[in-house]
Amino acid sequence: MPYPPLIEKVIFHFSKLPGVGRRSAERMAFWVLGHSREEVSALAQSIVELKENLKSCRLCNNFAQADVCMICSDSSRDQYTLCVVEDPKDVLAIEKTGAYKGQYHVLMGNISPADGRGPEDIKIGHLVNRVQSGLIKEVVIATDPDNEGEMTSLYIIDRLKDKNVKVSRIGLGIPMGSSVEFSDMSTLCVSFNSRRKIQK
Amino acid sequence: MPYPPLIEKVIFHFSKLPGVGRRSAERMAFWVLGHSREEVSALAQSIVELKENLKSCRLCNNFAQADVCMICSDSSRDQYTLCVVEDPKDVLAIEKTGAYKGQYHVLMGNISPADGRGPEDIKIGHLVNRVQSGLIKEVVIATDPDNEGEMTSLYIIDRLKDKNVKVSRIGLGIPMGSSVEFSDMSTLCVSFNSRRKIQK
Repeated sequence: MPYPPLIEKVIFHFSKLPGVGRRSAERMAFWVLGHSREEVSALAQSIVELKENLKSCRLCNNFAQADVCMICSDSSRDQYTLCVVEDPKDVLAIEKTGAYKGQYHVLMGNISPADGRGPEDIKIGHLVNRVQSGLIKEVVIATDPDNEGEMTSLYIIDRLKDKNVKVSRIGLGIPMGSSVEFSDMSTLCVSFNSRRKIQK
Repeated sequence: MPYPPLIEKVIFHFSKLPGVGRRSAERMAFWVLGHSREEVSALAQSIVELKENLKSCRLCNNFAQADVCMICSDSSRDQYTLCVVEDPKDVLAIEKTGAYKGQYHVLMGNISPADGRGPEDIKIGHLVNRVQSGLIKEVVIATDPDNEGEMTSLYIIDRLKDKNVKVSRIGLGIPMGSSVEFSDMSTLCVSFNSRRKIQK
Protein backbone atom coordinates (compact mmCIF):
# COMPACT_ATOMS: atom_id res chain seq x y z
CA MET A 1 0.00 0.00 0.00
CA PRO A 2 1.43 3.37 -0.95
CA TYR A 3 0.38 6.53 0.90
CA PRO A 4 -3.05 8.00 0.12
CA PRO A 5 -3.09 9.75 -3.29
CA LEU A 6 -2.99 13.25 -1.73
CA ILE A 7 0.30 12.41 -0.04
CA GLU A 8 1.73 10.58 -3.06
CA LYS A 9 0.98 13.62 -5.21
CA VAL A 10 2.93 15.95 -2.93
CA ILE A 11 5.80 13.44 -2.77
CA PHE A 12 5.80 13.27 -6.58
CA HIS A 13 6.01 17.04 -6.91
CA PHE A 14 8.58 17.54 -4.14
CA SER A 15 10.83 14.91 -5.66
CA LYS A 16 11.10 16.95 -8.85
CA LEU A 17 13.01 19.63 -6.89
CA PRO A 18 16.80 19.52 -7.31
CA GLY A 19 18.55 17.25 -4.83
CA VAL A 20 15.31 15.78 -3.49
CA GLY A 21 14.82 12.02 -3.69
CA ARG A 22 11.86 9.89 -2.66
CA ARG A 23 12.84 9.75 1.02
CA SER A 24 13.40 13.49 1.38
CA ALA A 25 10.16 14.17 -0.46
CA GLU A 26 8.33 11.91 2.02
CA ARG A 27 9.84 13.83 4.91
CA MET A 28 8.75 17.10 3.30
CA ALA A 29 5.20 15.79 2.86
CA PHE A 30 5.12 14.92 6.56
CA TRP A 31 6.46 18.37 7.34
CA VAL A 32 3.42 19.76 5.50
CA LEU A 33 1.11 17.53 7.55
CA GLY A 34 2.79 18.47 10.80
CA HIS A 35 2.84 22.24 10.38
CA SER A 36 0.19 24.91 10.65
CA ARG A 37 -2.03 25.85 7.76
CA GLU A 38 -0.47 29.35 7.82
CA GLU A 39 3.08 28.12 7.43
CA VAL A 40 2.15 25.69 4.69
CA SER A 41 0.15 28.16 2.66
CA ALA A 42 2.91 30.76 3.08
CA LEU A 43 5.29 28.31 1.40
CA ALA A 44 2.88 27.52 -1.43
CA GLN A 45 2.02 31.17 -1.94
CA SER A 46 5.63 32.34 -2.04
CA ILE A 47 6.34 29.81 -4.79
CA VAL A 48 3.42 30.98 -6.90
CA GLU A 49 4.18 34.67 -6.32
CA LEU A 50 7.79 34.21 -7.32
CA LYS A 51 6.75 32.55 -10.55
CA GLU A 52 4.07 35.12 -11.30
CA ASN A 53 5.82 38.33 -10.34
CA LEU A 54 9.56 38.07 -10.93
CA LYS A 55 10.64 39.92 -14.06
CA SER A 56 13.94 40.46 -15.76
CA CYS A 57 15.52 43.90 -15.91
CA ARG A 58 14.86 45.73 -19.17
CA LEU A 59 18.44 47.02 -19.21
CA CYS A 60 20.64 44.13 -18.02
CA ASN A 61 18.37 41.03 -17.88
CA ASN A 62 19.11 40.51 -14.19
CA PHE A 63 16.26 39.48 -11.88
CA ALA A 64 14.02 42.43 -11.09
CA GLN A 65 10.77 43.07 -9.29
CA ALA A 66 10.26 46.31 -11.23
CA ASP A 67 10.98 47.24 -14.81
CA VAL A 68 14.62 47.96 -13.98
CA CYS A 69 16.68 46.03 -11.41
CA MET A 70 18.16 47.39 -8.18
CA ILE A 71 21.66 47.60 -9.62
CA CYS A 72 20.75 49.41 -12.84
CA SER A 73 18.65 51.90 -10.90
CA ASP A 74 21.47 52.67 -8.43
CA SER A 75 22.89 55.96 -9.70
CA SER A 76 25.82 55.84 -7.27
CA ARG A 77 27.43 53.01 -9.25
CA ASP A 78 30.07 53.42 -11.96
CA GLN A 79 28.19 53.93 -15.25
CA TYR A 80 31.19 53.32 -17.53
CA THR A 81 32.11 49.72 -16.81
CA LEU A 82 30.02 46.74 -17.87
CA CYS A 83 30.56 43.22 -16.57
CA VAL A 84 29.19 40.45 -18.79
CA VAL A 85 28.02 37.28 -16.99
CA GLU A 86 26.09 34.20 -18.05
CA ASP A 87 23.55 34.04 -15.26
CA PRO A 88 21.87 36.20 -12.57
CA LYS A 89 23.51 33.97 -9.95
CA ASP A 90 26.89 35.19 -11.19
CA VAL A 91 25.80 38.77 -10.44
CA LEU A 92 25.08 37.80 -6.87
CA ALA A 93 28.41 36.02 -6.47
CA ILE A 94 30.30 39.08 -7.75
CA GLU A 95 28.23 41.51 -5.67
CA LYS A 96 29.06 39.52 -2.54
CA THR A 97 32.76 40.28 -3.03
CA GLY A 98 32.16 44.04 -3.06
CA ALA A 99 35.08 44.28 -5.53
CA TYR A 100 33.03 45.58 -8.44
CA LYS A 101 30.89 48.70 -8.56
CA GLY A 102 29.94 48.95 -12.22
CA GLN A 103 27.04 47.78 -14.36
CA TYR A 104 26.17 44.22 -15.43
CA HIS A 105 24.91 42.53 -18.53
CA VAL A 106 23.40 39.08 -18.03
CA LEU A 107 23.55 36.92 -21.16
CA MET A 108 21.02 34.42 -19.82
CA GLY A 109 23.10 31.48 -20.97
CA ASN A 110 26.12 30.73 -23.09
CA ILE A 111 26.95 29.62 -26.62
CA SER A 112 26.84 25.84 -26.76
CA PRO A 113 26.66 24.25 -30.22
CA ALA A 114 26.41 20.83 -28.54
CA ASP A 115 23.10 21.93 -27.00
CA GLY A 116 22.03 23.78 -30.14
CA ARG A 117 22.50 27.22 -28.52
CA GLY A 118 23.98 29.88 -30.77
CA PRO A 119 24.76 33.58 -30.23
CA GLU A 120 21.23 34.55 -31.25
CA ASP A 121 19.78 32.47 -28.40
CA ILE A 122 21.39 34.58 -25.70
CA LYS A 123 21.47 38.32 -25.09
CA ILE A 124 24.53 39.18 -27.19
CA GLY A 125 22.72 41.42 -29.69
CA HIS A 126 21.32 43.30 -26.73
CA LEU A 127 24.86 43.64 -25.31
CA VAL A 128 26.24 45.02 -28.57
CA ASN A 129 23.41 47.56 -28.81
CA ARG A 130 24.06 48.63 -25.25
CA VAL A 131 27.76 49.14 -25.93
CA GLN A 132 27.09 51.05 -29.17
CA SER A 133 24.50 53.39 -27.78
CA GLY A 134 25.79 54.06 -24.28
CA LEU A 135 28.37 55.44 -21.97
CA ILE A 136 30.31 52.19 -21.63
CA LYS A 137 34.10 52.51 -21.77
CA GLU A 138 35.13 49.03 -20.63
CA VAL A 139 33.51 45.62 -20.99
CA VAL A 140 34.75 42.99 -18.51
CA ILE A 141 33.88 39.50 -19.73
CA ALA A 142 33.12 37.25 -16.74
CA THR A 143 31.69 34.17 -18.43
CA ASP A 144 32.70 30.82 -16.92
CA PRO A 145 36.14 29.49 -17.88
CA ASP A 146 34.70 26.28 -19.33
CA ASN A 147 34.24 25.34 -23.00
CA GLU A 148 30.96 27.16 -23.46
CA GLY A 149 31.98 30.23 -21.47
CA GLU A 150 35.28 30.55 -23.33
CA MET A 151 33.53 30.20 -26.67
CA THR A 152 31.00 32.85 -25.62
CA SER A 153 33.84 35.10 -24.49
CA LEU A 154 35.71 34.74 -27.81
CA TYR A 155 32.53 35.47 -29.74
CA ILE A 156 31.84 38.63 -27.74
CA ILE A 157 35.44 39.82 -28.15
CA ASP A 158 35.01 39.41 -31.91
CA ARG A 159 31.71 41.29 -31.98
CA LEU A 160 33.16 44.20 -29.99
CA LYS A 161 36.51 44.48 -31.79
CA ASP A 162 35.50 47.53 -33.89
CA LYS A 163 33.35 49.17 -31.25
CA ASN A 164 35.90 51.57 -29.70
CA VAL A 165 35.53 50.07 -26.24
CA LYS A 166 38.11 48.51 -23.95
CA VAL A 167 37.47 44.78 -23.52
CA SER A 168 38.94 42.64 -20.76
CA ARG A 169 38.55 39.12 -19.40
CA ILE A 170 38.49 38.37 -15.66
CA GLY A 171 41.71 36.79 -14.38
CA LEU A 172 41.92 33.04 -14.80
CA GLY A 173 44.38 30.82 -12.94
CA ILE A 174 45.00 28.91 -9.75
CA PRO A 175 42.34 29.80 -7.16
CA MET A 176 43.38 31.33 -3.84
CA GLY A 177 43.86 28.75 -1.10
CA SER A 178 44.64 25.90 -3.49
CA SER A 179 48.04 24.60 -4.58
CA VAL A 180 50.19 24.37 -7.71
CA GLU A 181 50.72 20.65 -7.17
CA PHE A 182 47.06 19.75 -7.29
CA SER A 183 45.98 22.16 -10.03
CA ASP A 184 44.73 20.57 -13.24
CA MET A 185 46.75 21.00 -16.44
CA SER A 186 44.48 23.50 -18.15
CA THR A 187 44.43 25.75 -15.09
CA LEU A 188 48.24 25.62 -14.88
CA CYS A 189 48.51 26.46 -18.60
CA VAL A 190 46.16 29.42 -18.31
CA SER A 191 47.94 30.62 -15.18
CA PHE A 192 51.25 30.75 -17.10
CA ASN A 193 49.67 32.50 -20.05
CA SER A 194 48.08 35.11 -17.81
CA ARG A 195 51.13 35.73 -15.61
CA ARG A 196 51.55 39.28 -14.28
CA LYS A 197 54.82 41.15 -14.42
CA ILE A 198 56.02 42.10 -10.92
CA GLN A 199 59.39 43.69 -11.66
CA LYS A 200 61.64 44.76 -14.55
CA MET B 1 23.18 42.44 -2.21
CA PRO B 2 20.81 39.57 -1.46
CA TYR B 3 18.38 38.29 -4.08
CA PRO B 4 15.25 40.32 -4.77
CA PRO B 5 12.68 39.96 -1.95
CA LEU B 6 10.46 37.60 -3.97
CA ILE B 7 13.34 35.13 -4.28
CA GLU B 8 14.50 35.60 -0.68
CA LYS B 9 10.97 34.82 0.51
CA VAL B 10 10.85 31.52 -1.36
CA ILE B 11 14.33 30.64 -0.09
CA PHE B 12 13.21 31.43 3.45
CA HIS B 13 10.19 29.15 3.16
CA PHE B 14 12.00 26.32 1.37
CA SER B 15 14.72 26.30 4.00
CA LYS B 16 12.16 25.48 6.68
CA LEU B 17 11.63 22.08 5.04
CA PRO B 18 13.47 19.19 6.72
CA GLY B 19 16.99 18.64 5.42
CA VAL B 20 16.99 21.84 3.36
CA GLY B 21 19.68 24.45 4.04
CA ARG B 22 20.24 27.85 2.47
CA ARG B 23 22.08 26.47 -0.58
CA SER B 24 19.49 23.80 -1.39
CA ALA B 25 16.72 26.34 -0.89
CA GLU B 26 18.43 28.64 -3.40
CA ARG B 27 18.62 25.82 -5.92
CA MET B 28 14.93 25.11 -5.36
CA ALA B 29 14.06 28.77 -5.91
CA PHE B 30 15.95 28.67 -9.22
CA TRP B 31 14.13 25.47 -10.10
CA VAL B 32 10.90 27.42 -9.67
CA LEU B 33 12.20 30.18 -11.93
CA GLY B 34 13.38 27.71 -14.55
CA HIS B 35 10.25 25.58 -14.82
CA SER B 36 6.89 26.10 -16.45
CA ARG B 37 4.04 27.84 -14.70
CA GLU B 38 2.07 24.56 -14.85
CA GLU B 39 4.71 22.51 -13.07
CA VAL B 40 5.26 25.16 -10.41
CA SER B 41 1.60 25.68 -9.66
CA ALA B 42 1.06 21.90 -9.57
CA LEU B 43 3.64 21.73 -6.79
CA ALA B 44 2.10 24.60 -4.84
CA GLN B 45 -1.41 23.27 -5.30
CA SER B 46 -0.56 19.74 -4.22
CA ILE B 47 0.89 21.13 -0.98
CA VAL B 48 -2.22 23.15 -0.21
CA GLU B 49 -4.57 20.31 -1.16
CA LEU B 50 -2.73 17.88 1.08
CA LYS B 51 -3.02 20.25 4.02
CA GLU B 52 -6.67 21.04 3.33
CA ASN B 53 -8.03 17.62 2.47
CA LEU B 54 -6.16 14.89 4.32
CA LYS B 55 -8.14 13.51 7.23
CA SER B 56 -7.53 10.85 9.80
CA CYS B 57 -9.54 7.64 9.82
CA ARG B 58 -12.42 7.69 12.29
CA LEU B 59 -11.70 4.09 13.25
CA CYS B 60 -7.92 3.75 13.43
CA ASN B 61 -6.51 7.34 13.12
CA ASN B 62 -4.47 6.39 10.04
CA PHE B 63 -4.29 8.88 7.15
CA ALA B 64 -7.49 8.84 5.14
CA GLN B 65 -9.01 10.75 2.28
CA ALA B 66 -12.51 9.71 3.32
CA ASP B 67 -14.12 9.21 6.71
CA VAL B 68 -12.61 5.72 6.98
CA CYS B 69 -9.18 4.76 5.64
CA MET B 70 -8.45 2.23 2.89
CA ILE B 71 -7.36 -0.45 5.33
CA CYS B 72 -10.35 -0.21 7.68
CA SER B 73 -12.73 -0.25 4.72
CA ASP B 74 -11.12 -3.37 3.20
CA SER B 75 -13.47 -6.18 4.23
CA SER B 76 -11.13 -8.89 2.95
CA ARG B 77 -8.73 -8.25 5.85
CA ASP B 78 -8.67 -10.13 9.14
CA GLN B 79 -11.12 -8.35 11.47
CA TYR B 80 -9.91 -10.05 14.67
CA THR B 81 -6.32 -8.86 14.98
CA LEU B 82 -5.31 -5.30 15.84
CA CYS B 83 -1.80 -3.98 15.48
CA VAL B 84 -1.00 -0.91 17.60
CA VAL B 85 1.56 1.52 16.16
CA GLU B 86 2.73 5.01 17.08
CA ASP B 87 2.54 6.68 13.70
CA PRO B 88 0.89 6.38 10.26
CA LYS B 89 4.36 5.86 8.79
CA ASP B 90 4.64 2.66 10.80
CA VAL B 91 1.48 1.37 9.10
CA LEU B 92 3.11 1.92 5.73
CA ALA B 93 6.31 0.16 6.78
CA ILE B 94 4.37 -2.88 8.01
CA GLU B 95 2.10 -2.93 4.95
CA LYS B 96 5.15 -3.01 2.69
CA THR B 97 6.20 -6.35 4.20
CA GLY B 98 2.87 -8.00 3.35
CA ALA B 99 3.31 -10.06 6.52
CA TYR B 100 0.26 -8.67 8.32
CA LYS B 101 -3.34 -8.69 7.13
CA GLY B 102 -5.26 -7.45 10.18
CA GLN B 103 -6.44 -4.08 11.42
CA TYR B 104 -4.38 -1.19 12.80
CA HIS B 105 -4.69 1.31 15.59
CA VAL B 106 -2.50 4.40 15.27
CA LEU B 107 -1.74 6.05 18.62
CA MET B 108 -0.53 9.29 17.02
CA GLY B 109 2.46 9.46 19.33
CA ASN B 110 3.85 7.81 22.40
CA ILE B 111 3.97 8.36 26.15
CA SER B 112 6.90 10.62 26.98
CA PRO B 113 6.93 12.24 30.42
CA ALA B 114 10.10 14.11 29.42
CA ASP B 115 8.11 15.89 26.70
CA GLY B 116 5.05 16.23 28.92
CA ARG B 117 3.05 13.65 26.93
CA GLY B 118 0.91 11.30 29.00
CA PRO B 119 -1.51 8.48 28.06
CA GLU B 120 -4.37 10.96 27.67
CA ASP B 121 -2.45 12.83 24.94
CA ILE B 122 -2.44 9.86 22.56
CA LYS B 123 -5.21 7.58 21.32
CA ILE B 124 -5.09 4.98 24.10
CA GLY B 125 -8.62 5.59 25.43
CA HIS B 126 -9.82 5.17 21.86
CA LEU B 127 -7.88 1.88 21.65
CA VAL B 128 -9.39 0.53 24.87
CA ASN B 129 -12.91 1.42 23.68
CA ARG B 130 -12.25 -0.31 20.39
CA VAL B 131 -11.04 -3.47 22.12
CA GLN B 132 -13.99 -3.47 24.54
CA SER B 133 -16.67 -2.95 21.95
CA GLY B 134 -15.41 -4.95 19.03
CA LEU B 135 -14.47 -8.23 17.45
CA ILE B 136 -10.80 -7.99 18.39
CA LYS B 137 -9.24 -11.22 19.70
CA GLU B 138 -5.56 -10.27 19.62
CA VAL B 139 -3.74 -6.95 20.07
CA VAL B 140 -0.19 -6.89 18.67
CA ILE B 141 1.78 -3.99 20.16
CA ALA B 142 4.19 -2.61 17.59
CA THR B 143 5.39 0.58 19.26
CA ASP B 144 9.10 1.41 18.82
CA PRO B 145 11.55 -0.46 21.08
CA ASP B 146 12.93 2.78 22.55
CA ASN B 147 12.21 4.30 25.98
CA GLU B 148 8.97 6.00 24.99
CA GLY B 149 7.69 3.09 22.90
CA GLU B 150 8.45 0.57 25.65
CA MET B 151 6.74 2.73 28.24
CA THR B 152 3.72 3.09 25.95
CA SER B 153 3.69 -0.67 25.40
CA LEU B 154 3.77 -1.41 29.15
CA TYR B 155 0.98 1.06 29.78
CA ILE B 156 -1.21 -0.51 27.09
CA ILE B 157 -0.52 -4.01 28.43
CA ASP B 158 -1.66 -2.81 31.84
CA ARG B 159 -4.81 -1.19 30.47
CA LEU B 160 -5.76 -4.34 28.55
CA LYS B 161 -4.95 -6.91 31.26
CA ASP B 162 -8.60 -7.48 32.32
CA LYS B 163 -10.10 -7.10 28.87
CA ASN B 164 -10.25 -10.78 27.82
CA VAL B 165 -8.07 -10.22 24.76
CA LYS B 166 -4.78 -11.81 23.76
CA VAL B 167 -1.98 -9.23 23.85
CA SER B 168 1.41 -9.68 22.18
CA ARG B 169 4.48 -7.59 21.45
CA ILE B 170 6.31 -7.74 18.11
CA GLY B 171 9.59 -9.68 18.27
CA LEU B 172 12.58 -7.64 19.41
CA GLY B 173 16.20 -8.70 18.93
CA ILE B 174 19.11 -8.65 16.53
CA PRO B 175 17.97 -7.44 13.10
CA MET B 176 18.37 -9.70 10.06
CA GLY B 177 21.61 -9.10 8.17
CA SER B 178 23.48 -7.74 11.19
CA SER B 179 25.80 -9.57 13.57
CA VAL B 180 26.00 -10.66 17.20
CA GLU B 181 29.42 -9.09 17.56
CA PHE B 182 28.30 -5.60 16.68
CA SER B 183 24.92 -5.62 18.43
CA ASP B 184 24.53 -3.20 21.29
CA MET B 185 24.07 -4.53 24.83
CA SER B 186 20.38 -3.81 25.23
CA THR B 187 19.58 -5.53 21.91
CA LEU B 188 21.63 -8.58 22.98
CA CYS B 189 19.82 -8.66 26.33
CA VAL B 190 16.39 -8.47 24.75
CA SER B 191 17.37 -11.08 22.18
CA PHE B 192 18.22 -13.53 25.00
CA ASN B 193 15.05 -12.75 26.89
CA SER B 194 12.94 -13.29 23.80
CA ARG B 195 14.68 -16.47 22.60
CA ARG B 196 12.50 -19.05 20.82
CA LYS B 197 12.58 -22.73 21.60
CA ILE B 198 13.62 -24.80 18.56
CA GLN B 199 13.76 -28.32 20.00
CA LYS B 200 13.03 -30.36 23.19
